[in-house]
Amino acid sequence: MPAMNTPIAADASPIRLLVAQGGGPTAVINQSLVGIVAEARALPQVQAIVGARHGVRGILREDLVDLAAEAPATLEAVAATPAAALGSTRDKPDRDYCKKLLRTLQAHGITHFFYIGGNDSADTVRIVAEEAAAAGHLLVSRHVPKTIDNDLMGNDHTPGFPSAARFVVQAFAGADLDNRALPGVYIGVVMGRHAGFLTAAAALARQQADDGPHLVCLPERVFDLDAFLAAIKSTHERLGRCVVAVSEGIHDAAGTPMLSVLAAGKGLERDAHGNVQLSGTGALADLLCEQVKSRLGISRVRGDTFGYLQRSFVGCVSDVDQHEARAVGSFALQSTLAADAPTAASVALRRVPAQDGSYACEIALQPLTVVAAQTRTMDDAFIAASGLDTTPAFADYLRPLLGSGLVLPSRLAGHPVAKRLG
Amino acid sequence: MPAMNTPIAADASPIRLLVAQGGGPTAVINQSLVGIVAEARALPQVQAIVGARHGVRGILREDLVDLAAEAPATLEAVAATPAAALGSTRDKPDRDYCKKLLRTLQAHGITHFFYIGGNDSADTVRIVAEEAAAAGHLLVSRHVPKTIDNDLMGNDHTPGFPSAARFVVQAFAGADLDNRALPGVYIGVVMGRHAGFLTAAAALARQQADDGPHLVCLPERVFDLDAFLAAIKSTHERLGRCVVAVSEGIHDAAGTPMLSVLAAGKGLERDAHGNVQLSGTGALADLLCEQVKSRLGISRVRGDTFGYLQRSFVGCVSDVDQHEARAVGSFALQSTLAADAPTAASVALRRVPAQDGSYACEIALQPLTVVAAQTRTMDDAFIAASGLDTTPAFADYLRPLLGSGLVLPSRLAGHPVAKRLG
Repeated sequence: MPAMNTPIAADASPIRLLVAQGGGPTAVINQSLVGIVAEARALPQVQAIVGARHGVRGILREDLVDLAAEAPATLEAVAATPAAALGSTRDKPDRDYCKKLLRTLQAHGITHFFYIGGNDSADTVRIVAEEAAAAGHLLVSRHVPKTIDNDLMGNDHTPGFPSAARFVVQAFAGADLDNRALPGVYIGVVMGRHAGFLTAAAALARQQADDGPHLVCLPERVFDLDAFLAAIKSTHERLGRCVVAVSEGIHDAAGTPMLSVLAAGKGLERDAHGNVQLSGTGALADLLCEQVKSRLGISRVRGDTFGYLQRSFVGCVSDVDQHEARAVGSFALQSTLAADAPTAASVALRRVPAQDGSYACEIALQPLTVVAAQTRTMDDAFIAASGLDTTPAFADYLRPLLGSGLVLPSRLAGHPVAKRLG
Repeated sequence: MPAMNTPIAADASPIRLLVAQGGGPTAVINQSLVGIVAEARALPQVQAIVGARHGVRGILREDLVDLAAEAPATLEAVAATPAAALGSTRDKPDRDYCKKLLRTLQAHGITHFFYIGGNDSADTVRIVAEEAAAAGHLLVSRHVPKTIDNDLMGNDHTPGFPSAARFVVQAFAGADLDNRALPGVYIGVVMGRHAGFLTAAAALARQQADDGPHLVCLPERVFDLDAFLAAIKSTHERLGRCVVAVSEGIHDAAGTPMLSVLAAGKGLERDAHGNVQLSGTGALADLLCEQVKSRLGISRVRGDTFGYLQRSFVGCVSDVDQHEARAVGSFALQSTLAADAPTAASVALRRVPAQDGSYACEIALQPLTVVAAQTRTMDDAFIAASGLDTTPAFADYLRPLLGSGLVLPSRLAGHPVAKRLG
């Protein structure tokens, strides 16, 4: 980590800051919020710490709360609570919307704007910063990264992803045990429309050669239904069972989501951006299970869709993730204090190469354009040649992020007793 | 707890025991297994400790393992691992099947038979015990309770239920935060075909008056779709959002599962007992969401089906449950040692009334017929008059079972900032 406690000049300019949270909640997004707020409260030049409820929508509607008035104990308890404490939004502001946001910032004399979110939130910060500059309003802006999808460019990983990955690991470790106890085919559908990182995390549930998941299907590769079924058949013949991790974003060669392909003719909800709704429905798992039953003739086939549990479950969090989410929040504020600090930037987590294989990350600033409206996907080096699994390099990448205290299953040696009846 | 360390006479009869696990896995079923095995290993008269793989099916097929040969450290690690370490089965033996089981027990000189499972497993123990008596084979049998459904008669609760309930509490606490951050309607479907205990557990996620779940729909009450939609509409108008806990077993006045009612005309899988498959599909949540969208005109409606995660998730366990599951296993073995011990019985957990409100359970034996093939459902005292919620009495009942270290959410005080634009 870079030095974070730069001495502040006594005559530093007054700071009136506004912070908001956007996009899907994570287990640690409130750590970043409290990182910003706690850091700000320690600075004498900070005159206002305002939170907007439900992201940009709260700024638009002037729905603001006074975070300076929160008790420190409340803030610490909230930091340990999953999901956006200020509320979030799916609004994706255009330039006109951003002009309205600026009006609120101006009315409240906001000098510093912090938006904790994903690539869409970074794009909002970019536009607001441009509009502020055009209007001659002195505004320092920071995008603070978060997303369980881990799809932000210029970051080793994003706060929120490690805790969601830990949930996926624990879920597949348990699902594999369950499937071992009552054998059949199990398909677990994981979030991530374009980036397969979270689905790939399932691979870290394995300890022994025959542990599941036995297949990992990522949105970075074209989904081939025949190859998928053949691989399940082969595993089922070999082990008497098969556990599969599938990304909600799997698609055919034309880029059409498999949910649409398999559900052709049925009504499918689309979101404000025109995308098919992939989350909050168990349809993809059910449709894939139908294919396995009807085409492979396997009777016990079960599907689970991890849904909202994977991003908001209370009590499943990576301590590495908590620490880093707090640190990016603190850093975001500190990064505005130097005389030569950039006006607008995005905060990024970067892994520090270590000769001894130990894990460390540092925090840096990068241009908003690196992150804004861009999508990072899995490196080829993380995906097996078969396209149906991850590589050891991915496990090496993810393992240190999962945090301490992860207990994985143990099994009996199972010494056979000689038959007497035969 | 009754005294468990009764001194054993040096000339006690030799014991050759067989243990198996049946039905759906739980987070702590291996604690009961290890309770039996560890207790047996300490007794000089125990000559064999045999485990059957995949329940009665392993006995039928003579697929047996030597548990005396397992390292103690392995056993302890397995005790802390969810899901049946010996494997389980959905086989529901009839008398002919049980006669075959007896043949294996006789061939291996088994004197003591322990079956860890639910009401069907208790029924198997009953039939095997009858067949043994009829055949003149001296067999001591114990049914050891487990089920996440909490539906065994004569028990205050069953091992496995508290940990699954803890999962449901943590899941709804998180889902409610998520729904608060991005408001809409959220429906979470919980396991439990006939008994609503696990669904009802969702109520313990609430801390403040407006916390979800706002509705709890149990299989003990007839599901009225119109009343359900009216309650969601009312909550959504009042709070701008609504979180609902629904049992997979909800049914209409004729007893037809709502999954069948709502999916009329679509193909539905049935299990070996002719029941509609309720688990391993997201269909009920999706069908209920469709109703909310189409009939109430609410756009953001999301459904999750907790599926297998709720019974096998690694890393979500009640320490009270772990302790009790271990104790029922130990007790099961000890209960066979006294000179006047009953030949066949079921082990039961009974709550000890305490004047000071503290929680304690004792372990006792009860006749197999109390449990076998019977189903306990929620007491009326646990269900609100509306039929769409639980009562404080239920919360009092469940709270001590959830175990220590349960961290529930905290929220900001949220002092409003005065508007400047209006």
